[in-house]
Amino acid sequence: MDISSSPLVDGESAASYGTDLIPVGTAVRVRVPGSTGNVGPGYDSLGLALGRYDELTVERTDEPLVLDVRGEGSGSVPRTEEHLVIRAMRTAWRAIGMHALPGLRVEAVNGIPHSRGMGSSASAIVAGVVAANAMVPQDLRLSENAMLQICSQMEGHPDNVAPSLFGGLVISYSGADGFHSVSVPVHDDVVPVVAVPDYEVPTRIARGLIPESVPHREAAVNSGRAALLVHAMKDEPSELFAGTEDSLHQQYRASAMGPSAALVAHLRGRGLAAIVSGAGPTVLVLAANVSEAERAAEAMDDFYDTPANVLDDRIVNWDVERLTVDGNGVIVDHIEPGTLR
Amino acid sequence: MDISSSPLVDGESAASYGTDLIPVGTAVRVRVPGSTGNVGPGYDSLGLALGRYDELTVERTDEPLVLDVRGEGSGSVPRTEEHLVIRAMRTAWRAIGMHALPGLRVEAVNGIPHSRGMGSSASAIVAGVVAANAMVPQDLRLSENAMLQICSQMEGHPDNVAPSLFGGLVISYSGADGFHSVSVPVHDDVVPVVAVPDYEVPTRIARGLIPESVPHREAAVNSGRAALLVHAMKDEPSELFAGTEDSLHQQYRASAMGPSAALVAHLRGRGLAAIVSGAGPTVLVLAANVSEAERAAEAMDDFYDTPANVLDDRIVNWDVERLTVDGNGVIVDHIEPGTLR
Repeated sequence: MDISSSPLVDGESAASYGTDLIPVGTAVRVRVPGSTGNVGPGYDSLGLALGRYDELTVERTDEPLVLDVRGEGSGSVPRTEEHLVIRAMRTAWRAIGMHALPGLRVEAVNGIPHSRGMGSSASAIVAGVVAANAMVPQDLRLSENAMLQICSQMEGHPDNVAPSLFGGLVISYSGADGFHSVSVPVHDDVVPVVAVPDYEVPTRIARGLIPESVPHREAAVNSGRAALLVHAMKDEPSELFAGTEDSLHQQYRASAMGPSAALVAHLRGRGLAAIVSGAGPTVLVLAANVSEAERAAEAMDDFYDTPANVLDDRIVNWDVERLTVDGNGVIVDHIEPGTLR
Repeated sequence: MDISSSPLVDGESAASYGTDLIPVGTAVRVRVPGSTGNVGPGYDSLGLALGRYDELTVERTDEPLVLDVRGEGSGSVPRTEEHLVIRAMRTAWRAIGMHALPGLRVEAVNGIPHSRGMGSSASAIVAGVVAANAMVPQDLRLSENAMLQICSQMEGHPDNVAPSLFGGLVISYSGADGFHSVSVPVHDDVVPVVAVPDYEVPTRIARGLIPESVPHREAAVNSGRAALLVHAMKDEPSELFAGTEDSLHQQYRASAMGPSAALVAHLRGRGLAAIVSGAGPTVLVLAANVSEAERAAEAMDDFYDTPANVLDDRIVNWDVERLTVDGNGVIVDHIEPGTLR
C-alpha cells in the first residue's frame, strides 16, 4: 500500500475555527511505537517500527496547559507549549484551521529512550499530530497522507515518522508531490534485539560526518544490499546478515560512537546482522529467529568486558532488550473525560 | 532461496576423466532465457529473466566438432571451439575433471538479440555449462551453486547469468565465499515491454562512462529506490515507476545511446517505468499490468517520428515487443540421439 499518493497539504487550511471546535471533555489516548531509521544500507530511506512505545493522553479542558511527562527523557523536556508533542498538536490544528491552542491536560508516558537512535522525536511528533487530529470532528480530520506530510516536515524527513505512523518496515522517498512511504510487512521470525548504551550522540553531530561523495562501487553495492534487505525482512530472514551490510553511513560515523561501532563489529564477527540504529549510538541486531536473538543478547553481554567497551575512560553500560517489530503503527482511542484527574 | 550458500568451486577437479565419460549418442536440449541486468537502481546487482530464449541442442559424436548457429547473431559468431557456448562447455567439463573436448554436434537457435543489453552472452554461457553438466553421469554433476560460480566467473559478474539460471528477479552480490544470488518471484501482473533498436553499444564502452564517485545523496536515494523496486516487482507493481528511478548508470551513459536515453525520457514523461536494459541500448518498460503494457508499446511507436529518434543522421528502427518474465530459468532435457541429423 502506498499511503501517500494524494497531493501534499500546504500546512494551513483556508477555514478558520475557534477552540470551541473541540468540546471540553474530549479526550484521546495514543500509543505510538518507536522506530529505527537508516536501517543498514537504507540510509535516509528504510525505517522499522519497534515495539517500544510512548503513550500520550490528552484531554480538552477550559484551563491553561497542564503537561505531565514521565519515563524516558522526562528530566530534560520543557513542560510548556514548547514541548514537541504540543508543537505537533498545534501544527496539526493549524493545518485544519484552528489557530489558537485550547486548554489541555496532557500526560506523556515515554518508553522510547531519547537521543539514542530509536526515533523518540518522530514518535512525539506522530503522537501529537494523531492525537490532535482525532480530537476534531471527523469531517475535518487530516488524511493519513496529510499526517505523513506534516510529521515529515516537522521531523525533516519521513524515515522515522512513517514507521511510527504505519508500522512494519517502511520504504520512504520524496517526490515532486511530497513524501511517500510504502509499508512492507515483516516476516514473523524476525526479532530485533537492541543494546542501548548510556551515552548519547546528537543526530546533528552524526549527520555532519557523512561525506559529500562516495565511490560509485560502494554506492552500487549498497543499493544491492538495500534490495536484498527488503526481501530478507519480508520473506527470507536468513539473508539478513548480507542484507544489512552498509557502505553509506556506519563507517563514517564510527569515530563519534566508538563503543557502538566496536559492538557492531563484535556481533557481525559472530555472524549476527548487527547495525547502528538510526544515527546511533544504539546497536540493533535483526535476528532471523528466536534462537539467534538469544545468541545476539548473549554476545551483547559478552562485549561488556572487552577493552573496546570504553568511552572517555569509563566502561559503557548497555541496556540489552529483545523487542518485537510493531506491525500496526500508531493507535488512537477516544476515552472517557476525567481519566487523567 | 539463496541458491549459492555452498563454497566456491575452484574451477578444477582433482579427478581426471577421458572423453569416454560421456557415451557417444548422449544428447541434451537446453532452453535458456535472456535477461536484463542493471535493472533501474540495481546497477551491478539486479537482473530479471526475460521470456526470450536461446535453444541449444548438443549430441556427443565420435567426429570433430560440428556447430550450427541460427537466428540472432549467427552472422558474427565463430563456428569453432572459440564459440562462447563451446568455451562454456569446456570450462564446465574441466571443473568436473574432463580436460579434452569430445566429438560434438551442436545446434544453437538464438532468439536473444546480441549486443543490445539482453544478456545474450550470459545466456550462451549458461546454456553451455548446463548442457555440459547434464551430459556427465549424475554423481559427477556440478551443484547449482558451482554452476553459478563458473558462469559468473566467465561472464565477470552474476547479474545476467543468475536470472538465466534461476529465473525471476535476482538480487546478486559477492561475498568472501563467491557470488550469491537470491531469486525473488515477480508479481503476475508485471509485463516487460522492450524496444530493441537497430544500433549497438558495446558493453565495454558503456562501462567506461561510469564515474569513480557519486554524490552521497544520490547513492542514498538510489539505495532507497532499489529497496522499493524489489517490493514493487514482487507485491506492488503500482510502485514500479518510482522503484525504477536510478542515479548510478543511465545518466552517465546517455551520451553513448542518445536515442535510447531520449526514448526513456519520452516514456517516463508518460508515467511509464522505463529504463535502459542492461548496458543498453535496448529500452525496457516494466508495465504494472496489461493495459499499461499496451500504452507502453503505443508510446514506443509514437517515438519513431520524433526529432530525437536519430543517430548519425539516420532514423533508428525499433523492434517493439511485449515479453513475459521468465520464472523458471534454464531448462534442460535429455533427448533421443540422432535428433540433430
